[in-house]
Amino acid sequence: MALIVQKFGGTSVGSTEKIKAVAERVLKQHRQGHKMVVVLSAMSGETDRLIGLAKNIQQIPDLREMDMLLSTGEQVTIALFAMAVKEAGFDAVSLLGDQVRIRTSNLHTKARIRNIDTALIHRHLDEGRIVTIAGFQGVTEEGDITTLGRGGSDTTAVALAAALKADACEIFTDVEGVYTTDPNICQAARKIDRISYDEMLELASLGAKVLDIRSVGLAKRFKVPVHVCSTFTENEGTWVVEEDKIMESMLVSGVTYSKNEARITINKVPDQPGVAAKIFLPISDAGIVVDMIIQNTRAGSLTDLTFTVLRSDYDRAIRLLQKVAEEIKAESVTGSENIAKVSIVGVGMRNHSGIASTMFQILAKEGINIMMISTSEIKVSCVIEEKYTELAVRALHDAFALDKENLPIEEAV
Amino acid sequence: MALIVQKFGGTSVGSTEKIKAVAERVLKQHRQGHKMVVVLSAMSGETDRLIGLAKNIQQIPDLREMDMLLSTGEQVTIALFAMAVKEAGFDAVSLLGDQVRIRTSNLHTKARIRNIDTALIHRHLDEGRIVTIAGFQGVTEEGDITTLGRGGSDTTAVALAAALKADACEIFTDVEGVYTTDPNICQAARKIDRISYDEMLELASLGAKVLDIRSVGLAKRFKVPVHVCSTFTENEGTWVVEEDKIMESMLVSGVTYSKNEARITINKVPDQPGVAAKIFLPISDAGIVVDMIIQNTRAGSLTDLTFTVLRSDYDRAIRLLQKVAEEIKAESVTGSENIAKVSIVGVGMRNHSGIASTMFQILAKEGINIMMISTSEIKVSCVIEEKYTELAVRALHDAFALDKENLPIEEAV
Repeated sequence: MALIVQKFGGTSVGSTEKIKAVAERVLKQHRQGHKMVVVLSAMSGETDRLIGLAKNIQQIPDLREMDMLLSTGEQVTIALFAMAVKEAGFDAVSLLGDQVRIRTSNLHTKARIRNIDTALIHRHLDEGRIVTIAGFQGVTEEGDITTLGRGGSDTTAVALAAALKADACEIFTDVEGVYTTDPNICQAARKIDRISYDEMLELASLGAKVLDIRSVGLAKRFKVPVHVCSTFTENEGTWVVEEDKIMESMLVSGVTYSKNEARITINKVPDQPGVAAKIFLPISDAGIVVDMIIQNTRAGSLTDLTFTVLRSDYDRAIRLLQKVAEEIKAESVTGSENIAKVSIVGVGMRNHSGIASTMFQILAKEGINIMMISTSEIKVSCVIEEKYTELAVRALHDAFALDKENLPIEEAV
Repeated sequence: MALIVQKFGGTSVGSTEKIKAVAERVLKQHRQGHKMVVVLSAMSGETDRLIGLAKNIQQIPDLREMDMLLSTGEQVTIALFAMAVKEAGFDAVSLLGDQVRIRTSNLHTKARIRNIDTALIHRHLDEGRIVTIAGFQGVTEEGDITTLGRGGSDTTAVALAAALKADACEIFTDVEGVYTTDPNICQAARKIDRISYDEMLELASLGAKVLDIRSVGLAKRFKVPVHVCSTFTENEGTWVVEEDKIMESMLVSGVTYSKNEARITINKVPDQPGVAAKIFLPISDAGIVVDMIIQNTRAGSLTDLTFTVLRSDYDRAIRLLQKVAEEIKAESVTGSENIAKVSIVGVGMRNHSGIASTMFQILAKEGINIMMISTSEIKVSCVIEEKYTELAVRALHDAFALDKENLPIEEAV
């Protein structure tokens, strides 16, 4: 008998019919004797509907009130799900982030989970109930409702799995698992059976939308086996596990891209000690995450500082930085939203040099100009013009032979 | 500087535009230095939408989960309202029943308020914020969300006004106040300026929908002056106050009717001690409220027991009673949903006899058969066939001269 945490996303619970189907699916495992904890997102479209209401009222909605508003979406779903389980003749109970005591930081709309009290959940499980918990939400020490940001329900699920010491955390979504790249733009994309936490971290951070990056980080830290699979088929999906549990590692596991970023340049910054802090402190204070940073020194004591932020933070960042630029006497702030980041990821890179330069060659052969580069132990990312995204992804997927299953590293190079 | 609790119903906050208008209205008084507590209902249509979702899933929705579901409606409104106040440049904070600690009984979907912790509200008011509180909802000792039933937001408002020792509780609605009868079916209906708690209690219990009866009971108990007025005009509405604050009492203050009831008869009940308890205990255990009861003794030791319940409880009551009838060896359970209750209310009745018989005469003159009668110190109710409702109301309104303002009692008789 296992304890399993399952999470279903918005499209999986997008109608009352779908909610009933999810209940049936969960009950199948419940009937086998497993203890089931079910984390749900808001019905698809609901969060956007609520954001629309807020924007009708406030230009830049108040973040505390935004959380008060958005957290209703998941509340609706869990209540309906519990009803569906009961209608099928079994017992269930729905619990809010507040009721489970999912304690978070105070950073509204982007809060971080601090701890979870599992006593109430265990009590309900022991009494034979299916426990359904609102994803995406928590509560501060002061009792204010918080949300964890987009994709937060994945984080709720993995955090719960960790706190409950669950045997597995299954993330149900509308795709069959993690693919070598986006099947929508590359027909040769192939589902990956097993992938390491580190690779998944990179893929998630690079824009693969199938799993929220924070949830992967949590899973790695607490060694929670995560199964990404489809709500709509019975097929095995992708297991995200520790690296030593994967028999054969690929040189490159996946090609990914992101169009969620924007590039900002602060031109002609006086190159003095402390100037970088003056630029990035207000940005991080505003909860804006900076991804890649490049500094080009010009002639003299002036430098250009270029970096990327989420496109949704772009306007806010530009406004903040215009003030900062004045203060530090930089010439101007410019930027572009028409960029994309294309990346390759693979633990195999650890032991193989030259992967990055191979990537640059492939892009060059297609006539794609590289604007920024960022590398880690297991990934290489290039910022390019947005319009070349699909071309770049297909070329890289093909060149690294990702359509071939379990190709030994030696053959691939 | 006064502390005022204002409650706005669903039609008053039915769109983001209307929510902004309500915020402007509240701010007008806030700017005059008053401390404002604003209780809101769900946007009109939202509660019905949620009930529709639940019914898609569960034939008879689980009551705990129903509360989890329905309480989201008010949560959305208060978040949007707080945003609207902030957008106008003032400070506001939204609070849920759980956060205010509006403690209730465990009777889901029909919970009763036990106590309210006002500390948090006072703190926010003292810090200059407009405090907006979700109507209709509370929380049990165990932390489960409850709702107070339809009209529960009125109760929330009055209970808050009582707990906060507010100077007034203003109930904003889509009508201009309390009328001598329903203006939709009787053109001569007139707005009442002042009415006593007792009269309002009767009117509310008899189906006048403008104010929830529980809220009137609370207002009476804690002497909260209640002002019923329109969201859409600036006109003075109706003040519900203590009887001695009303200069001239009318013989009959209002004529009201209800189509929300159904009649049930248990035929040929063996007339033994304890049999009434056997019938009504399971009914009250199921949270079904019985209104009028009539017992007709037949020849021998058999009796017919007739009573009315809310139409929404009719099916459930019939099902329960069919079991009971078998147990007590009664012949059958019959009933009808096509009835209406027409009533006259007025504190003047206390000192004037013969009002009831006047009412019976008026109905007889119109050829309307009276099926059941119930009286109290200040009201007379008759159950009639539903199709005669409007005719009966107009005849009574006319006969008791309710279209004439402040008619002295002597003249009216």
